[in-house]
Amino acid sequence: MTEENRIEKIIDVCLRRGFVNQSAEIYGGSSGFFDLGPLGTLMRQKLVDFWRQLFVLDNDNIFEIDGSLLLPESVFKASGHLDSFEDPLIQCKSCKSMYRADHIIAQNTGISAEGLSLEELDKIVEENKIVCPSCKGELDKARQFNLMFSTGIGPVSGNKGYLRPETAQNIFVNFKRYASFMRNKLPFGIAQVGKSFRNEISPRNFLIRVREFEQMEIEMFFDPEMANKFSLFDFVEDVEINIVTKEMQEKEWSKPLSMSVKDAVEKRIIPNQVMGYFIAMESEMLQALGIPKESFWFRFMLPHETPHYSGGNLDLEVKLSIGNVEIIGNAYRTDYDLKKHQKASKSTFTIVSNNKKVLPHVVEPSMGVGRILYTILEYCYREDESRTWSWFKFPASIAPIEIAVFPLMKKDGLAEYAQDLHLDLKDAGFVSFYDDSGKIGKRYARADEIGILYCITVDYESLEKDTVTIRDRDSTKQARVPIEDLEDVLDALLEEELTFEELLENQKNN
Amino acid sequence: MTEENRIEKIIDVCLRRGFVNQSAEIYGGSSGFFDLGPLGTLMRQKLVDFWRQLFVLDNDNIFEIDGSLLLPESVFKASGHLDSFEDPLIQCKSCKSMYRADHIIAQNTGISAEGLSLEELDKIVEENKIVCPSCKGELDKARQFNLMFSTGIGPVSGNKGYLRPETAQNIFVNFKRYASFMRNKLPFGIAQVGKSFRNEISPRNFLIRVREFEQMEIEMFFDPEMANKFSLFDFVEDVEINIVTKEMQEKEWSKPLSMSVKDAVEKRIIPNQVMGYFIAMESEMLQALGIPKESFWFRFMLPHETPHYSGGNLDLEVKLSIGNVEIIGNAYRTDYDLKKHQKASKSTFTIVSNNKKVLPHVVEPSMGVGRILYTILEYCYREDESRTWSWFKFPASIAPIEIAVFPLMKKDGLAEYAQDLHLDLKDAGFVSFYDDSGKIGKRYARADEIGILYCITVDYESLEKDTVTIRDRDSTKQARVPIEDLEDVLDALLEEELTFEELLENQKNN
Repeated sequence: MTEENRIEKIIDVCLRRGFVNQSAEIYGGSSGFFDLGPLGTLMRQKLVDFWRQLFVLDNDNIFEIDGSLLLPESVFKASGHLDSFEDPLIQCKSCKSMYRADHIIAQNTGISAEGLSLEELDKIVEENKIVCPSCKGELDKARQFNLMFSTGIGPVSGNKGYLRPETAQNIFVNFKRYASFMRNKLPFGIAQVGKSFRNEISPRNFLIRVREFEQMEIEMFFDPEMANKFSLFDFVEDVEINIVTKEMQEKEWSKPLSMSVKDAVEKRIIPNQVMGYFIAMESEMLQALGIPKESFWFRFMLPHETPHYSGGNLDLEVKLSIGNVEIIGNAYRTDYDLKKHQKASKSTFTIVSNNKKVLPHVVEPSMGVGRILYTILEYCYREDESRTWSWFKFPASIAPIEIAVFPLMKKDGLAEYAQDLHLDLKDAGFVSFYDDSGKIGKRYARADEIGILYCITVDYESLEKDTVTIRDRDSTKQARVPIEDLEDVLDALLEEELTFEELLENQKNN
Repeated sequence: MTEENRIEKIIDVCLRRGFVNQSAEIYGGSSGFFDLGPLGTLMRQKLVDFWRQLFVLDNDNIFEIDGSLLLPESVFKASGHLDSFEDPLIQCKSCKSMYRADHIIAQNTGISAEGLSLEELDKIVEENKIVCPSCKGELDKARQFNLMFSTGIGPVSGNKGYLRPETAQNIFVNFKRYASFMRNKLPFGIAQVGKSFRNEISPRNFLIRVREFEQMEIEMFFDPEMANKFSLFDFVEDVEINIVTKEMQEKEWSKPLSMSVKDAVEKRIIPNQVMGYFIAMESEMLQALGIPKESFWFRFMLPHETPHYSGGNLDLEVKLSIGNVEIIGNAYRTDYDLKKHQKASKSTFTIVSNNKKVLPHVVEPSMGVGRILYTILEYCYREDESRTWSWFKFPASIAPIEIAVFPLMKKDGLAEYAQDLHLDLKDAGFVSFYDDSGKIGKRYARADEIGILYCITVDYESLEKDTVTIRDRDSTKQARVPIEDLEDVLDALLEEELTFEELLENQKNN
């Protein structure tokens, strides 16, 4: 995944084929804002459903809520976002262009300047004689820029509100309600899927650094004394993950370690079993979505990369053509947020759980929908010598459209036969697409380009013998199947209980 | 549905049982903002899935997109929202309280003042000597208040953005992309589910008039010459709907007319078949969600209630305890929006569809998620003489939890048996809840209160004979069923292929 123009190629397919486009494109777009098109939206729904089944519905003690995006100032005063949710901004004195100070330093010097103070940043800029990348002008001193979008609520001026920069705050401020819903029995999790907003200084890299994005988050509350007696952990303790420890980062590291989550928790690389459970599940989930295991790892975050209250954070990072990118964050936020809101609101968040007074701790696995979708697009993108078109090797778990039905020709009743078949397959629950325009080869190419796994073609033999051909996206081979077996065969192929090679073998033997 | 305190009772259950709560409640809440709790979120997901299956996935020419909520100023300059998406605001000269002018007039005089000019409003206030409801002070002149929330995008000041007041604009501005995805073949629909924002002067009535809300919308584009040759219409033309015509509203009307959508289109009460199709589907959908047909109707909107470019709008209104409320709007927006954006962006939106140049017209069915959920809550809310608790008579299509599994006692292996059964039922796809705390009668009451349809109890006979009891929410009667038949019986009950009375009859006959 080192091809430099891979992101451009993917953006091109995304635009042409209805995956993603810039928001308000006809007005020149709005930097950092994107719309998911018809295919992107189908992928997003599959991703959210996959996550929801795995992390929420399968667990009796995790429930999902859906909170408001616009929250009053009091919430962010208490949470600390108003004071410190900011990035260092640096401006050119002559052309007035603005940059993120740590980014411009990294680009010019390779120094990782995240988390440095304004004074430290200014010093590096001065020492390295960094100038404005667009006009070579002198740069002003760095200053802090708050990343929250603010607005006024109601007709009375002065009543400020902010678009939430993370979904988590809705959950913390209503903690008492949710604890009561869960009958105060720890551990319990409150999940949320929804938009968050960060007014980034310089959005870039397509879906990676944007100003409006969707998160899938869980706040898992637990008694800190029970952090290593988390019953769900038993099911996943043997899962092997790739990990980058604190110690590895003190030297040059080239390859993550592979170890079981059990070992990682025992060695305190992962702070506790609660986070260990989520890390194991995330690793399994990404693989099921078509992202190869060797391409991602969990990196222990260094002190300057985490807030002061962190009990240990691990980011899931993936190797992309544009560099290593965090697509999931796992944060052990301890009881920091509940304490802050407890104090500011004069509430009591302590609960009596199993006959014991506890202020719960929280572990937060937080996933970016757009970043995961982009990662899937990059890892599934293919260019072959045998095809003149690009294609996506999506697994069925995430493919926006699974199968297509084509009549070989529009005439002689082939189109009607194919249309009926398409509707039957839809009724049977397949995500099917009907296409009768253009030559059959062109239709296969169009289907490959959006990652459709199997194309079913209705030809003259279909009319006579009630058989159709299935064309396999990955091998481009074709098999002929009786209509009466079609649904079972497609089911087995999509569920990966049958390979296309096996299907071809079976045919030969019959 | 005339009980005056019904809304308070529902709010009380919603808060206590995890359906809905105010956003940021611990800070005094934020007027017009709500969070869906665990049960509200499950209902919302069922509602969205129901809508998506019916209106999007079942139709080959309707696709869903997912656009950004924050859009640049250029979009709303072109759409007209910046100039005219406003409500008349009136302020008290002494206590400075603010009100929506037409609402304060309606409350004081019963005059429907929607759509009147500022001068007309001032005149009514003066003539009727309307004073401030809170301090009896003199009211100032009315002025316009724009309902959009504005914010600044990026670090450069002056780059304004607005939270979208409707989901539709994302679709219009990217019309070319979507037309191309649909290969320029009219008719086609672009759907969207997502949040919209309106800075209401005085939010009220719980989920009815809020500042942040979720919409399920479709923009159905068609060739205006084909407006009455809409093939989907054929499937629904005989559906009988309740309707209130323009003529009826010129007199006093007490009861809507019942007629087929076919008649309504032929009589031009519904502007065309495109809207006729959606109206028929909406009527069927609401009934399937537990809202009785006699409680709602489609009202033809009068000229002062629609924008000047409307080709005919019909609101679905429902009778609620707080008055008649619009929960779905059907708008024939003609080619107004495409024309406006075409001009402002200097693009061409004309497409060649079926060898003909067309600037498409659009019909927009727009549904409010919160309003529909509230309507379901009101119509399903029950108080019985036989029960000391309230309950919700949700149909399975919308019930947040369908079944519950209870062990009679926690001891003697009953809890383990029940827990295993619960997990098996979840695996089989039922939305099941396990509860072993408190007396069984109390557990039934708690289940009724959140509308669980069937409670399965594991008792000592279960251990001996592998049978369990099913308790029916609606009748409170119980039937004993062998474990091996349980899934089939539950399936048949939830799918309404079997009534509980029939189940009891079958037992007697065995």
